[in-house]
Formats: sequence, structure tokens, C-alpha cells
Amino acid sequence: MVANDNIAIENDLLLKKHKTVAINIMASPGAGKTSFILRTIDKLSRSFRIGVIEGDTSAATIDADKISELGFPAVQINTGGDCHLDANMLKSGLDNLTLSNLDLVLVENVGNLVCPAAFKLGTYKNILVASIPEGDDKPYKYPAMYSAVDVLIINKIDLLPYVPFNMEYFITGVKMLNPGLISFPISCKTDEGLEAWVNWVKTTVADFRHGINDK
Amino acid sequence: MVANDNIAIENDLLLKKHKTVAINIMASPGAGKTSFILRTIDKLSRSFRIGVIEGDTSAATIDADKISELGFPAVQINTGGDCHLDANMLKSGLDNLTLSNLDLVLVENVGNLVCPAAFKLGTYKNILVASIPEGDDKPYKYPAMYSAVDVLIINKIDLLPYVPFNMEYFITGVKMLNPGLISFPISCKTDEGLEAWVNWVKTTVADFRHGINDK
Repeated sequence: MVANDNIAIENDLLLKKHKTVAINIMASPGAGKTSFILRTIDKLSRSFRIGVIEGDTSAATIDADKISELGFPAVQINTGGDCHLDANMLKSGLDNLTLSNLDLVLVENVGNLVCPAAFKLGTYKNILVASIPEGDDKPYKYPAMYSAVDVLIINKIDLLPYVPFNMEYFITGVKMLNPGLISFPISCKTDEGLEAWVNWVKTTVADFRHGINDK
Repeated sequence: MVANDNIAIENDLLLKKHKTVAINIMASPGAGKTSFILRTIDKLSRSFRIGVIEGDTSAATIDADKISELGFPAVQINTGGDCHLDANMLKSGLDNLTLSNLDLVLVENVGNLVCPAAFKLGTYKNILVASIPEGDDKPYKYPAMYSAVDVLIINKIDLLPYVPFNMEYFITGVKMLNPGLISFPISCKTDEGLEAWVNWVKTTVADFRHGINDK
């Protein structure tokens, strides 16, 4: 773990050297991380040069292919069955991107609500994509993940009419664990709520650059 | 891992001694394991004496409480943040149930499509609950899990009209990994498909008892 954290610090320094913001995107399998990344790229590709790192437990390049097909640089990391990315895996991913040509790197972690939360990668921000059909009790059941992130995306709100989901109960659990957590309810199907998320990314990239220039 | 497998063998022998069938239920977070267990109990409580072991990464007893409220014995195992049950945890769960009074123990593993597949528990059958909103690409992305199970439940089929899900693509991935896998498409909301699953459990319990009596 100490070794991991040291490499995470190196990743952070490398990214700052290139003025590249990296965002670690964690979620349960099927919460919609890849669709979320695709919609984010679509909305930000005029503002930023974007690359993607795709963490997978197998060699299947389904997600990386979807990004590459749109003409954006995408690197797949096959964890070889491991249940999370670690800092060393991210390092190898970053080494395969031309960081000097990128403003923003979106990192799709392995779909898992437990292990990824424990491994720092050296990304500037860590976010969680929750989704409505997963149910409203997830903060209570996976507290480590909900405590560890800077931003919460609440995805698939278009499914609210079709599944039981008590938003108040969900948010109460979130606030108990992570009182100041910024959250964006969105739908990648209807685009609802995506504008607010995209504006947050723009502000975050600006803050990151100011922080570097101030030093 | 060898130590784990040895304890799994002990669990298997203990369960056989008491003529109790245990089923390990694995899934992604939010696939609907608990609802599935509740519907299964409802449909089988006249045929069998049923107990439940609930694996959670935290102390929240939400799921165990739902079972207990219905009057069935339920034991919670808090993994203390660990991402899966192991054989030793199951052993402690079994020790807290009166096995001589139980025909069937349903074991809800931690919500995770990676780690639980690697740890034998000593249960008679291992099953996976997939769910429609997770998406049709999960067999391709989590092959170890899809390869490791005896039965596949395809849950939340009532949501098929509202989400993109290509059943043919999904089933092709499943068959590639696990050709003989028995699967039950179901909805715990409408009860569609539950009868076939319940009949499979009845046959499985009968087979298990014959196997013991033949020895």
C-alpha cells in the first residue's frame, strides 16, 4: 500500500508536469461508466483534448474500442482478473498516452464498489457513478466507496418511474458519510443534468491550472 | 487459498451431515440479490425450512433485517470492508444457524462481479444474479464470474422495454464461457419466471438428498 501511494504521488507529479487533469471514475458494474464517458467526451471535445484509460478485468476491449472509434486516444489496462486499478497500472496507462497533447484524462476503473476505493491512483479527482436501478441503499452498504469520492454522479434518472428508489433515503445515506459531496443527477439517455456536470469539469480544469501556475 | 479450500471442504461436509443445501448467490451491487432471496423464500417456505446468511462490507444489517422481519433465521457477516465472503466467514455464519433445523441456506455474497468468484465457500451450488440494467456486455467483461457458476438468474426483465439490452449478444457471451449454464430470466417485481427457478431448487434439493442417501 505504501508502494502504491508512492507511485500515486509520481503519477500526480507527472500529470501536473503536463498540466493534464485526470479523473478516476468508479462504479458498480453496469452503472453506465462508459456511456457517461462517451457523453462527457461529446460535450467537452471542443473545450479540451481528451484521452481515456479503460480498466478491465479481461482482455475484452469493448469499452476502449468505443472511445477509439470516435477518434479519441484510448488505452486499455487489463488487470488480469484483479478487481481494481492500482497506481502502477495507471502509470503504465499514462505512459501509453501522449500527455503533452492532453488536457483531460478520464480513467474508467474496474466495475466494483469495494476495492477501487482503497487504492489511490494519483488522479486529481475521484468520482463515483451510482445508478438508479442499483437501489437507494448502496451508501449504507458500501460506505468506504461513498466516503472516498469528490463527486457523485446519480445516473439513469430516466428509470426513476420504473424502479423503487427513495431519493431522500439515498441522499441521507450519502450526506451521513460524505457531507460536502457534490452530486449530479443525470441521464445519459436524455442528457438531463449533463450540462451541470460538464460545467463542473470546466471549472475543475481551470482551478487545477491556476493551482499549478500559482506555484 | 489452500487454507480457504480446506475450510470449504469442511463446510461442505458439515452441510451434508445436516442434509442442508447451501446456495451461494453472487451478483453486482444492486442486481437484486435480496429481493430475489425474499421472493424465493416466499415461494419455498412451505416446502423447506430456510435460513439466510448475509454478507456485507459494513455493519449495516439492512438485508438481514428484511429476512428476520419475515420470521426466518438470518445471520449477518460483516466482512470488515473485504470484497467477498471466504470459507472461514461462511463457517462462522453456519455456526450461528441451527443447521439441523434447516433444509436450505441461501448465502448472499458481497455485491461484486470479480472477487467472490475466486473463493470457494463449500456451498452445494453457486449462482449469479445478473440484471438487465447492468447491460448485455457483462459476460465479456467479467468472464471469471460467468465461468464459475452453476446457474444464471437474469433479473429485472420487466425493465427490458426501458433500457438497451441485446439478449442474443448477452447469451452468446454466456455460452462462450459456460456452455451448459442453466439460466432463468425472471422479474422479482412481476414474479415472471420465478416458478421455473423454484422448481429447479426443489429438484436440486431432492438430488442432493439422493446423493447423500446413496453413500
